Amino acid sequence: MNRSSPLANVRIVLSHTSHPGNIGATARAMKTMGLSTLYLVNPKSFPDNEADVRASNARDILEQASVVHSLEEALHDTVLAIAMTARPRDLSNRILDTRQAAKALLEHASQSPVALVFGRESSGLTTAEISMCQLTVHIPTNPDYSSLNLAAAVQIMAYELRMVSTETTPIPPQPPAYQLASFNEIELFYRHLEQAMIDSEFLDPRQPKRLMQRIRRMFARTQLEKEEVNILRGILNALEKHRSV
Amino acid sequence: MNRSSPLANVRIVLSHTSHPGNIGATARAMKTMGLSTLYLVNPKSFPDNEADVRASNARDILEQASVVHSLEEALHDTVLAIAMTARPRDLSNRILDTRQAAKALLEHASQSPVALVFGRESSGLTTAEISMCQLTVHIPTNPDYSSLNLAAAVQIMAYELRMVSTETTPIPPQPPAYQLASFNEIELFYRHLEQAMIDSEFLDPRQPKRLMQRIRRMFARTQLEKEEVNILRGILNALEKHRSV
Repeated sequence: MNRSSPLANVRIVLSHTSHPGNIGATARAMKTMGLSTLYLVNPKSFPDNEADVRASNARDILEQASVVHSLEEALHDTVLAIAMTARPRDLSNRILDTRQAAKALLEHASQSPVALVFGRESSGLTTAEISMCQLTVHIPTNPDYSSLNLAAAVQIMAYELRMVSTETTPIPPQPPAYQLASFNEIELFYRHLEQAMIDSEFLDPRQPKRLMQRIRRMFARTQLEKEEVNILRGILNALEKHRSV
Repeated sequence: MNRSSPLANVRIVLSHTSHPGNIGATARAMKTMGLSTLYLVNPKSFPDNEADVRASNARDILEQASVVHSLEEALHDTVLAIAMTARPRDLSNRILDTRQAAKALLEHASQSPVALVFGRESSGLTTAEISMCQLTVHIPTNPDYSSLNLAAAVQIMAYELRMVSTETTPIPPQPPAYQLASFNEIELFYRHLEQAMIDSEFLDPRQPKRLMQRIRRMFARTQLEKEEVNILRGILNALEKHRSV
């Protein structure tokens, strides 16, 4: 965590990137806009000479990048994660436009780590990956040709983050009335709830349907606070221990 | 000139581009945002296989591109030309930021051709070239690293042009994908939850503190949907009927 600029608290997360050139171009796009924290979830090839070439003088970003094996690891300790999508989906989170997303990220980034998550070049993020994020952002594109290059999408979002961060007299971060729960606290709650639903036979693990997805979507909209997660888990514990009369 | 969309009247002009890959990436950046008119002033190598590769499915833009021998030719018939610069100079035009520039271009583009002019990868536009333009635009960058790739700069401006062009015709409010729960459905859920908390001794009705208030505040933020209320009440029913092992 860096208190000097909220931009330092914004993680760019690339999941399962195929082309190392895109990783390099992403590093350059980030650095031109003052971003520095890059997470790579299972990149196909990294480090890679092509990434270095495309990064130009932003290789320091590549050298400091965190290579991790799951999106959970990349989102550890974040209080807000926004998924980039090219297509609105049935079971999606609330969809923001680019400026709304940049504002939402920076509002929290002055206090805590936040993340902006990009998927595969070919197919974007999986539904499971999107469910780990609280919000979704969509870059408006030409409906006849929406094939934005990965690094170009990062460039646009990095640019919007810089624009928002430098806009005149930034609103002083309002001290949040309550502290937001972190990614891992919320994931533990979901696991607790899922287990309770299985134990009570509400959820059949062989036929899960899309129940956990529906539940994640519902709570993603709330942006749960620490104390709320404690209340929810307290209720679960109490209900698990008592049988109704 | 095209009356269907002002974007069709915006020319992207690349002067003396060295790397054909940047020309291809520019075509792709343009097409994703609905721009289609590309002028190339003395490109070092064009047509070129690398340009085709980087253009992906935007090769039609390359095929229709006008290759000319001077900036004058590229600006023929335009009523406004804006020069992109990374550095403010002594003898510069009025400098706009990206959004002001996009607005200025589109104001005129509904009637007449306009141009956005980008210089060499290494050194940008010459002073002579800048003087052929009426205005200058500067993309705000990290002062410690302002080395924006040529196609990335085009991408940002193309994006701003699209944002401005769609702002005039506001997106109609999206019909909610799911039906919101009614006041009474939500109240019944709260009563159900409260009773379950009392039965399980999580809530002491003689000392309720502000627990129900906290819970109401949390769910109020979500704007619960009908089906979500059903899921929540289903979980409560299941938990009330089963004791954990």
